[in-house]
Amino acid sequence: MINRLIEKIQKTGAPVVAGLDPMLSYVPEHVQKAAYAEYGETLRGAAEAVWQFNKEIVDHIWDLIPAVKPQIAMYEQFGVEGMEAYKKTVDYCKSKGLIVIGDVKRGDIGSTSAAYAVGHLGKVRVGSRVYAGFDEDFATVNPYLGSDGIKPFIQVCKEEKKGLFILVKTSNPSSGEFQDRLVDGKPLYELVGEKVAEWGADHCGDTYSYIGAVVGATYPEQGKALRRVMPKSFILVPGYGAQGGKGKDLVHFFNEDGLGAIVNSSRGIIAAYKQEAYAAYGEEHFGEASRAAVEDMIADIRGALEAAL
Amino acid sequence: MINRLIEKIQKTGAPVVAGLDPMLSYVPEHVQKAAYAEYGETLRGAAEAVWQFNKEIVDHIWDLIPAVKPQIAMYEQFGVEGMEAYKKTVDYCKSKGLIVIGDVKRGDIGSTSAAYAVGHLGKVRVGSRVYAGFDEDFATVNPYLGSDGIKPFIQVCKEEKKGLFILVKTSNPSSGEFQDRLVDGKPLYELVGEKVAEWGADHCGDTYSYIGAVVGATYPEQGKALRRVMPKSFILVPGYGAQGGKGKDLVHFFNEDGLGAIVNSSRGIIAAYKQEAYAAYGEEHFGEASRAAVEDMIADIRGALEAAL
Repeated sequence: MINRLIEKIQKTGAPVVAGLDPMLSYVPEHVQKAAYAEYGETLRGAAEAVWQFNKEIVDHIWDLIPAVKPQIAMYEQFGVEGMEAYKKTVDYCKSKGLIVIGDVKRGDIGSTSAAYAVGHLGKVRVGSRVYAGFDEDFATVNPYLGSDGIKPFIQVCKEEKKGLFILVKTSNPSSGEFQDRLVDGKPLYELVGEKVAEWGADHCGDTYSYIGAVVGATYPEQGKALRRVMPKSFILVPGYGAQGGKGKDLVHFFNEDGLGAIVNSSRGIIAAYKQEAYAAYGEEHFGEASRAAVEDMIADIRGALEAAL
Repeated sequence: MINRLIEKIQKTGAPVVAGLDPMLSYVPEHVQKAAYAEYGETLRGAAEAVWQFNKEIVDHIWDLIPAVKPQIAMYEQFGVEGMEAYKKTVDYCKSKGLIVIGDVKRGDIGSTSAAYAVGHLGKVRVGSRVYAGFDEDFATVNPYLGSDGIKPFIQVCKEEKKGLFILVKTSNPSSGEFQDRLVDGKPLYELVGEKVAEWGADHCGDTYSYIGAVVGATYPEQGKALRRVMPKSFILVPGYGAQGGKGKDLVHFFNEDGLGAIVNSSRGIIAAYKQEAYAAYGEEHFGEASRAAVEDMIADIRGALEAAL
């Protein structure tokens, strides 16, 4: 899957992920109204609104980018019905040829991580048959429990040719509270980065490992350091746009081959129609606004990379 | 909810949680067969098997203990259908008067943690109405992202009078890989424990905070140290039984009032019928075997506490 991700990045020229993290407040009123007309103001109605919103956006951007990253929390908040919308979104994006990074941030003790790995990336046995529960291509994973919380995910990735992005240095303001604390003179995130490199070393595609890392766009200096610590790991970089990251801040997340990172924007893409820059499209044409925002983001990052490399 | 937990612990005399973590391999053949006869060897069939298994066990143990802890990964592995079985289990346990600790180990950046908090402990707005998605009483949370990943959960707990158990020192063998690393001469788990105490200080029930911690039974020395670091926090102690912890190892997780900890056993209770000690019940009577295992666990812990306090 890491080979396929690279191939798609090269084909589109866009190391860009669209984060499908729909808050109901992002969903235009006409989409919400139509969903509530069919299912009422219920969890099912909300799930339908979110799904129709996603579908319209995906229909407008699928050809521009290699991957999407649905944030499962935004679906989980609507309970079982929300999870159905998540699954529909995953399946639809895959049907459009997009690689799906499930932003699930799971992680637990060994046997429990194994269940998460099976549910999101692998197949579960039921009697004499096997099924894929959510079936994303990549998943994000939390490292706090150490190797035996990670290895069951790696095992499933090996079997299914899928991949991981392990949280190393997250994009939020308080990420330093634990992640930046010094251990033997090194910040904890660097230790985690070293582990990611170690876990990834034995699990490589043609040029990059399928064990990647999450490092926030909001921390470019740390990104630069971590790029060196994990030379073979792809870095998933959230925090572009709405959270404050810009193209020129991101060049050090990439290797000299122009690869090694993929930058996520969520609100900046899916709620583009609410921004002044794209307001002219109007709420009705929110999909077109998203497409324009993706094009601008690609140009920003491509421009920064061309200037730097 | 922390007041209610304490009240129920005192009423039952059992600081014990049953972990409802059903692997299909734990579900007796006759239960699986009945479910597959109705729904086929499908994800729905597996979800039905797991739900019927849970129901039978809950029917046999609900009066002995204050709380259950369903591990959501074991349901999530069966996709959307599994999540339905999870929700059914949560609702059923609550209908029997049990407190439900959702072992979800979620945690993300602020706005995403807010969505998880709403989905598991709070209510989500859909148009003019509000709904509770999964509606557990407590949730486990991962601290790797720091305060702004935790505070949205605390906010919802305040509104809904619910509670958290934050991962501090987990029960698995590799938990020390990051959690034991020294920061300014102190292990990271102790730093996290100090934060739990700080987060909890402003959010207290009558005697204990509703911000608790997870500390594995497999690390009694660390439990002793953490008990002092977080005097007002309840400690959820996994790892009893199958993972190796015993009653006498656990006394230091408690305060002198005999409170402050609640001990979880999963496999040891729900798959009791597979153990030699309870094999005489037979597979057909797996619920009775679970009841006997719970009674033995309560006696073990109560005996150890009486000897120590």
